[in-house]
Amino acid sequence: MQNLGLFVKPSYDLAMEPERFHYDLENCSIKRALDVLGEKWTLLVLREAIYGVRRFDDFARALKCGRGVLSARLKTLTEAGILKRVEYREGEQRARAEYHLDESGIDLFTTIYALSQWGDRWMPPPGGPAAKVTDRGSGRAVKVVLTSEPKLKSLSMRDLKIAPGPGAKRIK
Amino acid sequence: MQNLGLFVKPSYDLAMEPERFHYDLENCSIKRALDVLGEKWTLLVLREAIYGVRRFDDFARALKCGRGVLSARLKTLTEAGILKRVEYREGEQRARAEYHLDESGIDLFTTIYALSQWGDRWMPPPGGPAAKVTDRGSGRAVKVVLTSEPKLKSLSMRDLKIAPGPGAKRIK
Repeated sequence: MQNLGLFVKPSYDLAMEPERFHYDLENCSIKRALDVLGEKWTLLVLREAIYGVRRFDDFARALKCGRGVLSARLKTLTEAGILKRVEYREGEQRARAEYHLDESGIDLFTTIYALSQWGDRWMPPPGGPAAKVTDRGSGRAVKVVLTSEPKLKSLSMRDLKIAPGPGAKRIK
Repeated sequence: MQNLGLFVKPSYDLAMEPERFHYDLENCSIKRALDVLGEKWTLLVLREAIYGVRRFDDFARALKCGRGVLSARLKTLTEAGILKRVEYREGEQRARAEYHLDESGIDLFTTIYALSQWGDRWMPPPGGPAAKVTDRGSGRAVKVVLTSEPKLKSLSMRDLKIAPGPGAKRIK
């Protein structure tokens, strides 16, 4: 059957388009990352870890999710090296585990902040952003950008101050 | 009971930490974005849209997922304004739908590329990255960075060339 062409024009040009089906992308980094992260609770657990939450009961309190789900997500993130288990002991109690961001977890901040920045722009929360992220060095607001400047070095999450934004709802 | 302190030191300082439980974050942009995107197939559908895929059968072929799942994900993404339905007609056939990235979908590229960059770094695919992203203007490699430079403007997905990288497996 003859293809008489489309009535629509592409909304943008993309060099790879005619090539798409000549490549198997199942091995790509997006797929590999989503095999670990592709689940809402996993990313919300990471959000809490970024906000400094470390203990099982605190994650459960913050997320209001089932303990089984939380336990499974912490296990996945620990096995992937995104969180690390660190034992602590209070008084005479038995040792318990805290979950700290490991290096790859700290590096995930860029992705999560890009998502947050997109959400602030396209699904703006009432009252403005819930978090305010500034550069500890300059005090200026931090953003995520696409750049081809070879000399531009990214800030790390360690360089940042994360504080409640105008839209953060304070709990009495 | 007396808290005798932790045996561990925090792995990083975080201004918000002592404050975490005074704020309700359920309204934050990460949560709102994940209400739409927090699902592996959704993000993989977006990956395909970025690679120029537009038609139902082509998404199904690329993703090898069930048609019911695909249909639900395309509906969610269209309702959220990330994809837009555009009708096309081939010859005498009835009108059918293509799914194009809308403005907010194009803006999501930063998040998806941040995820891909993280995956390339921490879960490197054998043979290197599956995609090579360059600035059409300068021809240089593109990266995602955190910055507080007020004058630095982000490139848009429209400024970029996305081509198969060294790790892309060509299908014969």
